[in-house]
Amino acid sequence: MSKKYRVGILGATGTVGQRFIQLLENHPQFEITALAASDRSAGKSFVEACAWKLSGGMPDSVKGITVQPIEPPLDCDIVFSSLPSSVARETEEAFARAGYPVISNSSSYRMDEDVPLLIAEINHKHTDLIEVQKQKRGFTTGFIVTNPNCAVISFAPPLAAMHRKFGVESVVVTTLQAISGAGYPGVPSLDITDNVVPYIAGEEPKVETEAQKILGQFVDGVIEKADFTVSAQCFRVHVIDGHTASVRVNLRNTATLEEIVEAMNNFPSLNLYSSPKKFIDVCDEPSRPQPRLDRDSGNGMTITVGRLFPDNIFDYRFVSLSHNTVRGAAGSAVLNAELLIDKKII
Amino acid sequence: MSKKYRVGILGATGTVGQRFIQLLENHPQFEITALAASDRSAGKSFVEACAWKLSGGMPDSVKGITVQPIEPPLDCDIVFSSLPSSVARETEEAFARAGYPVISNSSSYRMDEDVPLLIAEINHKHTDLIEVQKQKRGFTTGFIVTNPNCAVISFAPPLAAMHRKFGVESVVVTTLQAISGAGYPGVPSLDITDNVVPYIAGEEPKVETEAQKILGQFVDGVIEKADFTVSAQCFRVHVIDGHTASVRVNLRNTATLEEIVEAMNNFPSLNLYSSPKKFIDVCDEPSRPQPRLDRDSGNGMTITVGRLFPDNIFDYRFVSLSHNTVRGAAGSAVLNAELLIDKKII
Amino acid sequence: MSKKYRVGILGATGTVGQRFIQLLENHPQFEITALAASDRSAGKSFVEACAWKLSGGMPDSVKGITVQPIEPPLDCDIVFSSLPSSVARETEEAFARAGYPVISNSSSYRMDEDVPLLIAEINHKHTDLIEVQKQKRGFTTGFIVTNPNCAVISFAPPLAAMHRKFGVESVVVTTLQAISGAGYPGVPSLDITDNVVPYIAGEEPKVETEAQKILGQFVDGVIEKADFTVSAQCFRVHVIDGHTASVRVNLRNTATLEEIVEAMNNFPSLNLYSSPKKFIDVCDEPSRPQPRLDRDSGNGMTITVGRLFPDNIFDYRFVSLSHNTVRGAAGSAVLNAELLIDKKII
Amino acid sequence: MSKKYRVGILGATGTVGQRFIQLLENHPQFEITALAASDRSAGKSFVEACAWKLSGGMPDSVKGITVQPIEPPLDCDIVFSSLPSSVARETEEAFARAGYPVISNSSSYRMDEDVPLLIAEINHKHTDLIEVQKQKRGFTTGFIVTNPNCAVISFAPPLAAMHRKFGVESVVVTTLQAISGAGYPGVPSLDITDNVVPYIAGEEPKVETEAQKILGQFVDGVIEKADFTVSAQCFRVHVIDGHTASVRVNLRNTATLEEIVEAMNNFPSLNLYSSPKKFIDVCDEPSRPQPRLDRDSGNGMTITVGRLFPDNIFDYRFVSLSHNTVRGAAGSAVLNAELLIDKKII
Repeated sequence: MSKKYRVGILGATGTVGQRFIQLLENHPQFEITALAASDRSAGKSFVEACAWKLSGGMPDSVKGITVQPIEPPLDCDIVFSSLPSSVARETEEAFARAGYPVISNSSSYRMDEDVPLLIAEINHKHTDLIEVQKQKRGFTTGFIVTNPNCAVISFAPPLAAMHRKFGVESVVVTTLQAISGAGYPGVPSLDITDNVVPYIAGEEPKVETEAQKILGQFVDGVIEKADFTVSAQCFRVHVIDGHTASVRVNLRNTATLEEIVEAMNNFPSLNLYSSPKKFIDVCDEPSRPQPRLDRDSGNGMTITVGRLFPDNIFDYRFVSLSHNTVRGAAGSAVLNAELLIDKKII
Repeated sequence: MSKKYRVGILGATGTVGQRFIQLLENHPQFEITALAASDRSAGKSFVEACAWKLSGGMPDSVKGITVQPIEPPLDCDIVFSSLPSSVARETEEAFARAGYPVISNSSSYRMDEDVPLLIAEINHKHTDLIEVQKQKRGFTTGFIVTNPNCAVISFAPPLAAMHRKFGVESVVVTTLQAISGAGYPGVPSLDITDNVVPYIAGEEPKVETEAQKILGQFVDGVIEKADFTVSAQCFRVHVIDGHTASVRVNLRNTATLEEIVEAMNNFPSLNLYSSPKKFIDVCDEPSRPQPRLDRDSGNGMTITVGRLFPDNIFDYRFVSLSHNTVRGAAGSAVLNAELLIDKKII
Repeated sequence: MSKKYRVGILGATGTVGQRFIQLLENHPQFEITALAASDRSAGKSFVEACAWKLSGGMPDSVKGITVQPIEPPLDCDIVFSSLPSSVARETEEAFARAGYPVISNSSSYRMDEDVPLLIAEINHKHTDLIEVQKQKRGFTTGFIVTNPNCAVISFAPPLAAMHRKFGVESVVVTTLQAISGAGYPGVPSLDITDNVVPYIAGEEPKVETEAQKILGQFVDGVIEKADFTVSAQCFRVHVIDGHTASVRVNLRNTATLEEIVEAMNNFPSLNLYSSPKKFIDVCDEPSRPQPRLDRDSGNGMTITVGRLFPDNIFDYRFVSLSHNTVRGAAGSAVLNAELLIDKKII
Repeated sequence: MSKKYRVGILGATGTVGQRFIQLLENHPQFEITALAASDRSAGKSFVEACAWKLSGGMPDSVKGITVQPIEPPLDCDIVFSSLPSSVARETEEAFARAGYPVISNSSSYRMDEDVPLLIAEINHKHTDLIEVQKQKRGFTTGFIVTNPNCAVISFAPPLAAMHRKFGVESVVVTTLQAISGAGYPGVPSLDITDNVVPYIAGEEPKVETEAQKILGQFVDGVIEKADFTVSAQCFRVHVIDGHTASVRVNLRNTATLEEIVEAMNNFPSLNLYSSPKKFIDVCDEPSRPQPRLDRDSGNGMTITVGRLFPDNIFDYRFVSLSHNTVRGAAGSAVLNAELLIDKKII
């Protein structure tokens, strides 16, 4: 491994920002050289500015870095962004325009026609959209790529496996989402202890629209969205990390249970540093997947599927799980950056 | 208030047995005269035999009662039963044959053709089946009535409101069920802390079949089941009491959102001691119903519905909640007994 | 029951404010006529201003009340205050000076020499301090009384029982405190799920000083503090309501275990509306008290003590529990108001 | 690294047994060659016999191993034992007599005069007791060493640091213990959700006696126990892993806070595979240590200390934390085996 890319993190003190730092520690291709956060934090050392909330402690290498305001220039080659949507749109544009590849975990640009919404294993060809984007927006070296909403990632991979082979027609999904998805301080303990909350602001529309773009085809400079409908009900449950999706799906073509299991288990992973050995792991045990036991599978990058059965209204039902702050956020963004390097786009 | 019925409780030391005792304390129509439990407990005073797990403590009135074996005769007029299914079938038959009305919360007889499966507000006419049962089985004064599985009760009432007016065609339900539904010791804390379990043994088949019987018609001595299909995925979540159901439904006839809200809110309650003022309460707040805030509504006997919207695959979606050990177990059984008294069946 | 006192609540939308409203619903001596909260809420109806977080729902009677700014005059005879300490000092003084009896749950005035710090059963004679306070501060009809910190209340009653008979010399207490003690939004779920936090800002000094004032003697216009030392370590644990205290105590005079049990069990309760039948309840079961099972004892006003044994460093050890938002906050304040009425002070 | 010791695990399917397997995967000195568990499991493959409950999944290398009955002979050089005390005494003796070094995590032999109770960093010299044991019991190559109760380990290390320099006179400890300490199924979720349990069967006596042996001196073939008194109150709290101890301590000689911090931070670690870089880590942040954030420090082998202050009854107070199934169980046993290899005892 030759040179390391110098990385800046926008929103470094937040839940996902901390996960970025954790995943980039000892990463062979990246080194963190800049940390940016809100005005309140800017100017402090990172150890002073950040209330670290991940097990294992803050890496020593970032403790002394001085937090900077979230605006270009930053001393780095690439930025990873995990900004609240209120500021992400304007800020990420500014960085892209200033020449930085922006690998964003924010929702602002996900549904823009010229912005790739990537799950690297599924739609890496969508990176072709980057050239379209650069031309359209007048970017030079900079650009924006995004990864999907954390709830979408929990069921889009098994859907992709089915869609590729048999065509998905409709999807009913009920999500049981972890508290870390709301950031910090996020969900008050009085709201979630001994409780379930049947509402996550803005979530159901995202879950109902992003998968069609992810599973779409890049044709003539445009993503043609996949033609299926999603119905989503989203719940917050008392889990720290790991989003669970309860899914029913109708297919366009018939498929046996065995064919579906095979399509999922054999969905190709990539040969990148953060790729898990298995992208989708279909387990047999009747009581799996479970967030606490399965979220860390493949270092948090494997999607675990279980309880895959014929359904009595839809064709099939299953339960799908992913780690929402790794595969569902920082981990997917890092994988996207590895993909872009591999494709020599950065 | 004239005479009080003398009540025996089968399975008195269990989670639901304790809830029976709590609900019957100070009840104007019933007094507990017999408590029966497994051989391990029989012969001890109730206070010695029972590890009380409900807030508020064991009522003084039952502390000194000697626990008896679970077999007739018992010194009482009626028995409430909450037995594990392994023993319920034989034992409840024995009590019915010995002349006791058996108000059962067990699953053993729910789907027997000649046994009413009652939600008092919805299908009280099914009590006519009792005569059929007595003749068929050769019972004299005894008989068996049942109440539904606790998960079914969480969504059958709003379904009934829709079905009665607009005809239900198909239902997709995902349940988020409380730990108290598994009894005591029940769910190990290592299984549910920071976790969700996508499996409850035997639950999905029950949820997929009971509602059709409940919403059926009593015609010519038989329950004609309602003609709709249910798809169920059942999860255990980290909630003490209160089952939440995420529901999509297709109707046979068109209905506006307002008509559905009205059908639910105006579904008649009964004028019995344990009836709530409102049987179904449709709430507006976007983040409700929530188990901790809504399960005790109507003393645990009201079904709370929220997030009722048009769906983009089905006609409508909603979230429904009931208290699983009150409305979903002991409370429904007590209400059933009140109904039978009101109808002069006991 | 003759006239009802008209009550205003300062900080009505908060956790303790909501508990005040719940406890005053149907209270024979009080009716709520004014609700005051921060500027953000003022002017809205209470149902709009308040995110109700207690089981059972907001009482209909307060829904339509318009929230007012927290300043005199308010349309009421008495105010209950549950304000953050940052504003309590100035605001409560303003109300007292304007003629209102202020029954405060805030910490601001607890340790002022001329302000009673009341646990009604223990030191009701300290109400004599009110006259001293009025003269010193130039109040006319208004005055301020306080109740102790919620953690102190969890162990001060058994301490009082011992102190009165045998003299307390030193106390080592470790508290395990509920999340509701931090208000709403209060403790982030990411901080307390699968966790314990060994720090509550400002708590240990309060726990180490308030008990000596409570158990002190009113002599010549002054409270002579009880002469013992308290060492406190305070933890936040994952419990919704109910503070548990782990206590060791040295006595000045010898006492048998039986004498101590008797002193606690027989500590007189009062004959007021909110008084529990038993003020202190010593339980025998080896695994009690437990917050979930015992906090509601005596409608949340009984202190439950267990695991009372001789210690091998101190004279005795025990575990003590109280409901932190009832006995530890709103309930004690309401009881204080009942006491003041009974003594014809208001 | 030359040859690997072949290891058998007694009680392999339990919570601690699973942790042994996890810690020994990829260990440079050990390879698992035998797994033994109760009759119910014996004869099955491990993957069939064991309900794996640790994050990350069962290592492939053990899945196919056939579980054997818990009796010698087993195909291995050393046994790690994590048996329930009911069977540990007889079984471990049988293995020792049959020639196996028994590295036990069970409580049965901890307080036997001729059995070392080891925390490798603190009292590695106690391994000299092994020869005494062999002679007394007529063992040839076999022997038994033990590690302390998981709650004791959470505070014995900082105590050792103080004792060595300043002499400990008395200790008051209140423990807040994790649910994993009770094994599986262990603590019912209904007992610990929204709750604290002030009782762990048999725990307080262990916590009050083991530290004196650990900090004792090996003199003339005997451990002379350290001369201090411990008072313990033990609570179960809603934490998955990580025991927290709230401690006050009196010293025989005066010591400044700085001297104590230095004594702890500089307590030497060992140069063994499982030794953490820091044995005791004193942290400054006011709200630490916390189980979720600090239990994995040093791969679960570091003891984290915080809130170290002068106390107003004792000399000092502090809060101490260790991972109860790693440092408090399997990890300490593995470290003990590494120590014995290093000392050429095995």
